[in-house]
Amino acid sequence: METFADASAITPSGDDRWKAEVRPGWDIEGNTNGGYLLAIAARALAARVERPDPLTVTAHYLAPGRPGPVEVHTEEVRRGTRLATATGTMSAGDHRLLSVVGTFADLDRLSGPELVTGAPPELPVLPAASAAGDTELPAFTTKVDVRLHPDDGGFREGRRSGEARMRGWFRLPDDEPMDGFALILAADAFPPTIFNTDVPVAWTPTIELTVHVRARPTPGWLRCHFLTRFVTHGLLEVDGELWDAADQLVAQSRQLALVPRVARS
Amino acid sequence: METFADASAITPSGDDRWKAEVRPGWDIEGNTNGGYLLAIAARALAARVERPDPLTVTAHYLAPGRPGPVEVHTEEVRRGTRLATATGTMSAGDHRLLSVVGTFADLDRLSGPELVTGAPPELPVLPAASAAGDTELPAFTTKVDVRLHPDDGGFREGRRSGEARMRGWFRLPDDEPMDGFALILAADAFPPTIFNTDVPVAWTPTIELTVHVRARPTPGWLRCHFLTRFVTHGLLEVDGELWDAADQLVAQSRQLALVPRVARS
Repeated sequence: METFADASAITPSGDDRWKAEVRPGWDIEGNTNGGYLLAIAARALAARVERPDPLTVTAHYLAPGRPGPVEVHTEEVRRGTRLATATGTMSAGDHRLLSVVGTFADLDRLSGPELVTGAPPELPVLPAASAAGDTELPAFTTKVDVRLHPDDGGFREGRRSGEARMRGWFRLPDDEPMDGFALILAADAFPPTIFNTDVPVAWTPTIELTVHVRARPTPGWLRCHFLTRFVTHGLLEVDGELWDAADQLVAQSRQLALVPRVARS
Repeated sequence: METFADASAITPSGDDRWKAEVRPGWDIEGNTNGGYLLAIAARALAARVERPDPLTVTAHYLAPGRPGPVEVHTEEVRRGTRLATATGTMSAGDHRLLSVVGTFADLDRLSGPELVTGAPPELPVLPAASAAGDTELPAFTTKVDVRLHPDDGGFREGRRSGEARMRGWFRLPDDEPMDGFALILAADAFPPTIFNTDVPVAWTPTIELTVHVRARPTPGWLRCHFLTRFVTHGLLEVDGELWDAADQLVAQSRQLALVPRVARS
């Protein structure tokens, strides 16, 4: 079984560049998952500034990714005692896929007062995994283990909840340990929230995704909550909250996506 | 009276660079306001890609800004039919102040289905402006007209609401018209949410600020809502929602900030 660590591995290729291989199967209908691409790019930036944890990473998506070799060209813009910032571009050949900026740190070295007024999403008992060999589901669903809240997972059978929300569990297959880069992946691994509404939309291409990593996750399932409150002017936001098995907020995410008009048949 | 348009004006200086003058008085305790700096940088990126509206702009803050000349070095990374993306660095001399990435468009050319499940913050009657010549308040309060919800504005007199929230009105002085760049300013113009809690903190330096501009505001007051739900590991987020006089969501913002430990006397 291919691990996420392998599928997102980077190797130095000189001149502040890192190369990686976008693996097949990490796509939805041919377009490589945006969280997976950002995780690869973020690994390169973190390597550039020699810090273990992404604190806040933003990608602007320029073109769809495809399986094959990519290169991340990085630039260090600041290296402080605690925080370090880098920018980068991921390209496939001459084709730019994403522009990235991130600030990195060692989360073990950050501490301060605590004030938490949120809580993990309430989820019922963990649903069983989809039946193996379910060819209706994209290959991506074998790369990550996403189990949707039963109220949010019926949209594929036409049972939309009516709320632009997706809640559920996330882990890597075989309980592969998760780091901040896996959280970046998780932040973009759920189906579009809008599929639970009557808004006629076939896909929502991401313009920009920002992930804040707030803690390294403890082993076990993440509980995740993705919500859209505003679909306006052909744009929507998706706000994500990711909690670990120790009831710790481990990441927040927000993306801005396009909502192309489609004719509903 | 100096307008925001003047104070954030940019002029081309060749080689994809724009220069600007960070004006005095746009600071809090000597550090130039981060929203003001990002507005200047975003103007340069928008000029670079020749689009009128910032859709989503992210800054990573590298060093505090001071009054004086700055230069924004821009790079166009994609120019599509609707969306265009650019990156940039704002520097004062050899000193980098911010790293920026943004995607720009003409909001008049974007449309799609609408689904709105939020509402403007409920605010009581508009409070009077602070007494002119109140030397307790920073000069920045003469550059923007911010009026806090009475429940949220008592922190300066020690009456903290107990909730990490700031709600209130925003406009530019003399009702100067507001565009998307003014929304970027507004997204960082309110006092820190955490000042309404008992968390001992003197300031919260911004690591990263992202603003999504969803519509051009109609004339009149903005109603704004800033909320922090998680203070953990020496970090906090501030989520902002900005609504215009026509009850239209015009912007969302999120920042990640450091929460330095301070001894409370």
